[in-house]
Amino acid sequence: MLRIPYDDLYAALHRATLHLGLTGDRAALCARLFAETTCDGVYTHGLDRFPRFAEMVANGCIDVHAEPTRVSEAPPTAALAIERWNGNLGPGNLNAHSSMQRAIVLARQHGLGCVALANTNHWMRGGSYGWLAADSGLFAACWTNTLANLPPWGASTPALGNNPLVLAVPRPGGAHVVLDMAMSQFSYGTLAAYASRDQQLPVSGGYDLAGNLTTDPAAIEASKRALAVGYWKGSGLSLLLDMFAAMLSGGRAAHEIPQESTRESGVSQIFLAIDPATFADRAELDRMADSILASVHAATPIDPNRPARYPGEQTLHLRQENLRLGVPVTPAVWQQLQSLAFPHPGAP
Amino acid sequence: MLRIPYDDLYAALHRATLHLGLTGDRAALCARLFAETTCDGVYTHGLDRFPRFAEMVANGCIDVHAEPTRVSEAPPTAALAIERWNGNLGPGNLNAHSSMQRAIVLARQHGLGCVALANTNHWMRGGSYGWLAADSGLFAACWTNTLANLPPWGASTPALGNNPLVLAVPRPGGAHVVLDMAMSQFSYGTLAAYASRDQQLPVSGGYDLAGNLTTDPAAIEASKRALAVGYWKGSGLSLLLDMFAAMLSGGRAAHEIPQESTRESGVSQIFLAIDPATFADRAELDRMADSILASVHAATPIDPNRPARYPGEQTLHLRQENLRLGVPVTPAVWQQLQSLAFPHPGAP
Repeated sequence: MLRIPYDDLYAALHRATLHLGLTGDRAALCARLFAETTCDGVYTHGLDRFPRFAEMVANGCIDVHAEPTRVSEAPPTAALAIERWNGNLGPGNLNAHSSMQRAIVLARQHGLGCVALANTNHWMRGGSYGWLAADSGLFAACWTNTLANLPPWGASTPALGNNPLVLAVPRPGGAHVVLDMAMSQFSYGTLAAYASRDQQLPVSGGYDLAGNLTTDPAAIEASKRALAVGYWKGSGLSLLLDMFAAMLSGGRAAHEIPQESTRESGVSQIFLAIDPATFADRAELDRMADSILASVHAATPIDPNRPARYPGEQTLHLRQENLRLGVPVTPAVWQQLQSLAFPHPGAP
Repeated sequence: MLRIPYDDLYAALHRATLHLGLTGDRAALCARLFAETTCDGVYTHGLDRFPRFAEMVANGCIDVHAEPTRVSEAPPTAALAIERWNGNLGPGNLNAHSSMQRAIVLARQHGLGCVALANTNHWMRGGSYGWLAADSGLFAACWTNTLANLPPWGASTPALGNNPLVLAVPRPGGAHVVLDMAMSQFSYGTLAAYASRDQQLPVSGGYDLAGNLTTDPAAIEASKRALAVGYWKGSGLSLLLDMFAAMLSGGRAAHEIPQESTRESGVSQIFLAIDPATFADRAELDRMADSILASVHAATPIDPNRPARYPGEQTLHLRQENLRLGVPVTPAVWQQLQSLAFPHPGAP
């Protein structure tokens, strides 16, 4: 496995974002978000995702110069804790970062704050914005819709997105609890990874072409019938997350988003932040979190050597390991990044 | 099947809540919430739940006279959109109704509002508070923690609650979209119902005593190892919902709630309401909701006679049918209700 020092990874990504036309702080932040995601072990949405990001800059879906603008529909006298923003098809990770930052500002003022963002792009790793809020001491929830890649329960053709949902609880020393889950049991990326290793899924992940639940990843890729978490339950949750995101932002719903992975643009997102400092005692909160997590760790493990973990616990370990040993990278993508062999706007 | 006119059901429940010591508007609202839940087809949390409600009034877990009080920790100058309340162990459905009402008031003022409620009791049907907000034209999210009845992923002993989550989107004519889902794939009530009919579950619902996933409801009742929706994903979601509810309210977490169904008291809940009238156009929202739901209905159904449905769609049909034909009741419980054969405080 090829491991690269974090600083080298960041520097190469920074050169690449500049190459794509991003400038100044935005090029640096965009690179940092990709580098941190890779360092945290979410390889699918870190470096390995960069080529598709570059492709969508080149095909015009992502406007590297666009910044989010507030959509003012409310009377200016109303001091609302929720705002509609338009992402203007800018880079999804920059738009999402800016939106959570704005939700944090609103939460500092009102106790909680919400930004509903329309017309944005894939936010890469959603967990990044949960970590961002938690690093500022805030609770957060955020979610995005996606292109329709999931059949509603009882149907065989897609109408729902897998709509990742992020929930974050702040803890001292950066040991935050951060859940980042899509509404499909397995992403198509995960299915492809299992299929390439000729492995069965650990649990049913969808239907085969005959309409039977299956653990065969290739059969699900063939039927395009991935399964929602909890069958009918995740199907319902995906729909409601989509309705909240699209309707509150005034943006596109899952079924209106282009059905092609390199054209999946104009998605809708929700960013909610809660500042407990406005109404609660920090030391009491920390004690409560410790006690809840201790109860999870105290549950009898099925494998005696593997106690139950909380979401984010593995992330923090992996981050520390990757900072120490170097960040694992896919050699081909790392080489592509270093040679800046990406399409860019204006390239043929 | 015994069907009772809605008005008769309500009248009998009202006599019963008065019998338990509730008075005035509170007795009437408590009865109405039980009657509406039954009429909406959620029989487990309607009339059939009333005997346990009465038992918990008798054993002192529910104080029929207690009303929620605001916990003021924020400086009085801060106009926050989030508030902490103490349920003072009052009736769970009245506390929850009052908390969502308060969240609605905050949302009318700030665009969104949140009440974090500690020290309350089982809210019966969580969906009731979603319907309440949607009937007022608001979006809503609410959830509760419960006693620990779910092992964390990777463990064999319970540390998590099944923590029902409700999401509601308002639509004209009461055709709201309301999701009401617990984090376990099947409740213990559902497992018992399948077991009593000697039926297998449609999908795996937990583990047997040997540690294998099973569709045998009796085996899961024996092992007490119910499964979270989406395996590791629902396990994480349950934990985060618990942390939000307990920490934001300053109340009990799932692992601190008494582990006995008739002593499950002092739970923590979150009520979030969003008033779209403060920032969006109602007609545009209605058009968007119609379009999203049409895309769900347009998905190719597996059974040609059963198009995919949205959460709440069945509820509305069943409500209308039960209002027309009478509300189905369990004969033994209906007889018990009419004869007021419930324990009450002071009874031996």
